[in-house]
Amino acid sequence: MDLDALTHTSGEWLRATGPDSDIVMSSRIRLARNLADYPFPNRASDAVRADIEQLLRGEIAKSPAGKKLQYVQIDALETLDRQFLVERQLISRELSENHGQRGVGISPEENVSLMVNEEDHLRMQVLRSGFALEECWRDIDAIDDAIESSVTYAFSEQFGYLTACPTNVGTGIRVSVLLHLPGLVMTKEIQKVFQALQKIGLAVRGLYGEGSQAMGDFYQISNQATLGKGEEQIIKTIKDVIPNILAYERKVRTTLVQENRQNLHDQVSRALGNLKHARQISSEETMHLLSSVRMGINLGLIHDLEIPTLNELFIHTQPAHLQKLRHERMETAERNAARADYIRQRLTVPPSTN
Amino acid sequence: MDLDALTHTSGEWLRATGPDSDIVMSSRIRLARNLADYPFPNRASDAVRADIEQLLRGEIAKSPAGKKLQYVQIDALETLDRQFLVERQLISRELSENHGQRGVGISPEENVSLMVNEEDHLRMQVLRSGFALEECWRDIDAIDDAIESSVTYAFSEQFGYLTACPTNVGTGIRVSVLLHLPGLVMTKEIQKVFQALQKIGLAVRGLYGEGSQAMGDFYQISNQATLGKGEEQIIKTIKDVIPNILAYERKVRTTLVQENRQNLHDQVSRALGNLKHARQISSEETMHLLSSVRMGINLGLIHDLEIPTLNELFIHTQPAHLQKLRHERMETAERNAARADYIRQRLTVPPSTN
Repeated sequence: MDLDALTHTSGEWLRATGPDSDIVMSSRIRLARNLADYPFPNRASDAVRADIEQLLRGEIAKSPAGKKLQYVQIDALETLDRQFLVERQLISRELSENHGQRGVGISPEENVSLMVNEEDHLRMQVLRSGFALEECWRDIDAIDDAIESSVTYAFSEQFGYLTACPTNVGTGIRVSVLLHLPGLVMTKEIQKVFQALQKIGLAVRGLYGEGSQAMGDFYQISNQATLGKGEEQIIKTIKDVIPNILAYERKVRTTLVQENRQNLHDQVSRALGNLKHARQISSEETMHLLSSVRMGINLGLIHDLEIPTLNELFIHTQPAHLQKLRHERMETAERNAARADYIRQRLTVPPSTN
Repeated sequence: MDLDALTHTSGEWLRATGPDSDIVMSSRIRLARNLADYPFPNRASDAVRADIEQLLRGEIAKSPAGKKLQYVQIDALETLDRQFLVERQLISRELSENHGQRGVGISPEENVSLMVNEEDHLRMQVLRSGFALEECWRDIDAIDDAIESSVTYAFSEQFGYLTACPTNVGTGIRVSVLLHLPGLVMTKEIQKVFQALQKIGLAVRGLYGEGSQAMGDFYQISNQATLGKGEEQIIKTIKDVIPNILAYERKVRTTLVQENRQNLHDQVSRALGNLKHARQISSEETMHLLSSVRMGINLGLIHDLEIPTLNELFIHTQPAHLQKLRHERMETAERNAARADYIRQRLTVPPSTN
């Protein structure tokens, strides 16, 4: 896979074409699976890890979905390229930072990624733009079935799929939806949402998953428990609760526009002005301003700019992307200048038509 | 004089054509004079004020300079129009807020204004763009001589010209230079300048003179004493000290650009971005941002924008100007929106060629 070629593109899941994509950035389902005959990666020697990697790489290549995937040997990549894949959400931080032989199979649309020797032997992930959990489930279930038909997963009649960390035992499923909730953040209603979600066993995380800060008003809602419920039931819990959050976010946005249109218009327009004129800008400020502009577009306060462009900018302004775009290593100050240049260039040319 | 016609124009002194106009916005000299045979305005009855006004209006009309002046009866104007003339620096706050019959003769270029029944019977003012005190003095001295040839001024052999307030007795002269000193403000060196000026008997005031706040990094430097020194000597004191301040401001600007070009470029560029994108903006923030942009143009960090446009915006975004432009009375919130609209419109069309 030519990683450099990816720098100017963006994954299918950023195209903002899916349902409710004004608020739902993406839907994602990942499954954690392990081979029955091998120790978990954290217990495996380098030689055993190499065996696992070779075996699963072969199985992926043979599977129907795998035929379209490009396989990237993660341990052969430089730090910058690994970070680049993390920023695109194609691999996890865990896979990037792990040691030993490991890899990932990535679909050309960047919506399927199968990670080998992450925390578990196999982590399969399907991403979709917008609110599309059923499609994610259909795709990942097919991929899982195909691989399971030729390997023996570690499975217990009592517990279900066995995983390196007990939090994934059972279904091994993590269902998550990435939401853009600037209205609830602005009106400070977001805490109520978090409390309600916690009560039904759902977790709230930032853009880059576990332990990451909630930047740019993005929140990942996902299931905590993987045990004691079937996959469909876990998906249904999230699928049922999300529309309530969407309705809540839309309601506060409408109220904000009705009661304070001028203030809101001023804020989103100035955010765009700062993005278009900054000569140096941090990643954090970028996320914050892009978030305002994204809401401004959705509320019809900003024209001549498209959501996919904004979605791309969230990813393309991350450190590794900037450095790959410039083909050079850069320190923070240089990145802040390069980021400002890139944003200015992207926002002052006519929006792309795709 | 058609005040409405003025709303879209700006005075000669804003054209930034004079010497050192990167830093010196304008030079101004005013003379305070009183008629020998009448009490000072604050001691005069309404009937006597009316007599004074009629007499001086006639004298102004007869004088060589007066033939070109348009005379405006201030007491016949609405509050908004009076405020409008204050904002353009054509009349003082005192003349605007005084009572009884009073007026002002204004030259078409808006660089001469002769106020009748201000604190004194006659206040004569000449404004010039840039650092041009000698030209101001030549013009105002000629106007003063012409009027003095046909009226008798209150004059004491011992003290000189007599005035309503003792601070103006003697020469009745106030010499002032309006400086834009963003570099000295940013580097916090400005206090040193103030202290040095105070030691040589010069006062520092804001854009609108006595009691006004220093907004947008504008400072008026003027003489305190009018007694005990001749006019030329007072002018010379200011004329000699200003080049030192200009050199100081230019030095800190150069240092700022050399040592912190990126930060400075970011700051001035974002200031322009906010001006171009705001949907509501206060007068104070406007001054602050325009000040940054003005410095950015002078330092070559901002292109495609001319200093006269900026100078005009400082005046045209004042409350009365905005209301006259819109032909309606507006509360603060409405003005903040109108101001943002006006600025956006002025900064997004190509700069005027005059």
